[in-house]
Amino acid sequence: MDMHDLTRDLQQQNDSKIVMLVADGLGGLPQQPGGLTELETASTPNLDELARRGVSGSSIPVKPGISPGSGPGHLGLFGYDPLQYVIGRGALEATGIGFELQDNDVAIRCNFCSLDASGKITDRRAGRIPTEESAPLAERLRAVSIPGVQIFVEPVKEHRFVVVLRGDGLGGDVDDTDPQATGVPPLEPQADNPASQRTAEAAAEFVKQARQLLADQPTANGLTMRGFAPKPALPGYQEVYGLRAAAVAVYPMYKGLARLVGMDVVGDAQTLDQQVQIIRDHWQQYDFFFLHFKYTDSTGEDGDFDAKVKQTERFDTAIPEIMALNPDVTIVTGDHSTPAMWGAHSWHPVPTLLVADNCRTDACERFGESECLRGGLGQFEAKYLMVLALANAGRLAKYGA
Amino acid sequence: MDMHDLTRDLQQQNDSKIVMLVADGLGGLPQQPGGLTELETASTPNLDELARRGVSGSSIPVKPGISPGSGPGHLGLFGYDPLQYVIGRGALEATGIGFELQDNDVAIRCNFCSLDASGKITDRRAGRIPTEESAPLAERLRAVSIPGVQIFVEPVKEHRFVVVLRGDGLGGDVDDTDPQATGVPPLEPQADNPASQRTAEAAAEFVKQARQLLADQPTANGLTMRGFAPKPALPGYQEVYGLRAAAVAVYPMYKGLARLVGMDVVGDAQTLDQQVQIIRDHWQQYDFFFLHFKYTDSTGEDGDFDAKVKQTERFDTAIPEIMALNPDVTIVTGDHSTPAMWGAHSWHPVPTLLVADNCRTDACERFGESECLRGGLGQFEAKYLMVLALANAGRLAKYGA
Repeated sequence: MDMHDLTRDLQQQNDSKIVMLVADGLGGLPQQPGGLTELETASTPNLDELARRGVSGSSIPVKPGISPGSGPGHLGLFGYDPLQYVIGRGALEATGIGFELQDNDVAIRCNFCSLDASGKITDRRAGRIPTEESAPLAERLRAVSIPGVQIFVEPVKEHRFVVVLRGDGLGGDVDDTDPQATGVPPLEPQADNPASQRTAEAAAEFVKQARQLLADQPTANGLTMRGFAPKPALPGYQEVYGLRAAAVAVYPMYKGLARLVGMDVVGDAQTLDQQVQIIRDHWQQYDFFFLHFKYTDSTGEDGDFDAKVKQTERFDTAIPEIMALNPDVTIVTGDHSTPAMWGAHSWHPVPTLLVADNCRTDACERFGESECLRGGLGQFEAKYLMVLALANAGRLAKYGA
Repeated sequence: MDMHDLTRDLQQQNDSKIVMLVADGLGGLPQQPGGLTELETASTPNLDELARRGVSGSSIPVKPGISPGSGPGHLGLFGYDPLQYVIGRGALEATGIGFELQDNDVAIRCNFCSLDASGKITDRRAGRIPTEESAPLAERLRAVSIPGVQIFVEPVKEHRFVVVLRGDGLGGDVDDTDPQATGVPPLEPQADNPASQRTAEAAAEFVKQARQLLADQPTANGLTMRGFAPKPALPGYQEVYGLRAAAVAVYPMYKGLARLVGMDVVGDAQTLDQQVQIIRDHWQQYDFFFLHFKYTDSTGEDGDFDAKVKQTERFDTAIPEIMALNPDVTIVTGDHSTPAMWGAHSWHPVPTLLVADNCRTDACERFGESECLRGGLGQFEAKYLMVLALANAGRLAKYGA
């Protein structure tokens, strides 16, 4: 019995509202041993007030020691075991650029590459061709035509683009065609099972026609394909939790991840203020709101400690308006740590707090990594956060008699 | 997907060095409620310094409440789920006396017993025959000859000895022949499946010839066999972690356990000083060093609180020379608790610390059971320690995009 079997059985309806505020990459590291992290350095009076009212803890995104990407990081927060549910690379890339995958799609990450006259790869990334040049080339490939298969080609960045094949009977188990070497031609698409044979054939035909369409190009005259993946089969929030869920995000990746678990993406916010306004505008229509704030992660990835501190403070300013809506359960967390000192996603547990009337508050006085170690939620795997949210919202019945 | 699937996928190479220092049976209990444990009583300035620099926590060897033997205790520390990977009793006994099992071996724990004229057991342990008498008898059994099967007989202690059958097609699923009662004859070796039929036949032939070889003995004139077991199939450190691993231990059991996971057993140390010297001598050749210190366990098993305190202090004196090597990740832990007040392995979580540049240090000021409860590692299952070690060594890539 997994957690979703439990929540399916035990869910019950009421009028409660749950808000999950995700500051991407929230956890950090001090600049010197024994010093303060970004979050501990930041002035966060509103988050500190929530820490006093609520219960704190440290969220382990996947398992101890594992640094997650955005996909597994968010799946965990949404209550989906990130080791059980895997979003294929092609599907994540398509999601990241806002492409809405359908059930009969196979998404593929593609790279432009350079081929010599005999078809051998001379540069696996076509000289990291700038986006201004690669995007029109990707759009040019929309001219490829394959009977019975609808084709979408979407530019990403530099040498990268996405191809989505849509049609019946397209399995997703096809090997990468990137040989990970130069001096050899790209591999032929090979199906790993009969159900993916049509996909491999369509991919081969796509490559053949693309080569003709790119024949006039000096560097980006070929392509390789990686990470063939269907739309991941994730049960939806309505079914597993009984929640009408809304996602309020700025970046396509997080809108896409939310859509994959059945959330409605609402509004078209560009700023945190607008995100809060959109939650306010949709307050009556949904039971659950996921707000995603990107900049604690991007500043961490940039290795800019001070900028991450500033973005954390900016995030803090949104809290009073959220709390003015009187949510029954408020959660503040991150999908992983992105310490500026590390400059990348890390495995460190993520400071997390939950505020609700009956949350059994602890002695935490501030919101920060060290203080969370004293918190009532202890250290826990992120996948349990949604169950705690439902419980605190009075939305879970007793298990067993 | 288990943790080794993850570490296989995500492992990456660099020049980092990881040292795991295992004080066997490290965890303890106070002599009076509210008092200090052995570790807390000991003067351990060097370990305390590591606790200040690093991150502490409490390691649960298997699961809460489970007291492990040396096998599962070390498998957990080595990152092998002790409930998934089981070392059969015969294989552990052979490992414990330094016998290097091969892939086509079946190891069997044997007991000398006393039989009456009709072949019924009168004493299941042959009067706990002293080792001086039993060892030559075990060696005498090396005269047993079975076509197609190589036979090894190794004395252990008192009535116990080990038989290893080596040959092709020897399955390990044979029932114990010890009837666990007197007044009845030993059972015939029974195979549980066709693949173990030859093993059962060879075991029966061994018993038959052994009875003849022991016919002149007054008490140890028969034997029973238990715990038939092949060499356990454990994936190796190189494959699952990408680590060249060295084990530096004094006792055969721990050398053997390390060998089973693909570590090289280096040197022939008899003292802790020699163990440290061996690590120093092999510093460039390996990525990972496992040092095993036995005496915190043996004094605990003896129920000698003061002696365990002394051995803990002795262990502490080795720390500065280890740290002078500048390991990138240093771990200090135990494979289980052996409280002197309990006089046996126990289930209590084991004080554990990890020191690395980006370990996110906590407020712990000393190394001890109570202080570890405030630590940043929280309470965790021992099997995650190797993943944390790899992460802190920068040897794990991100999981998912």
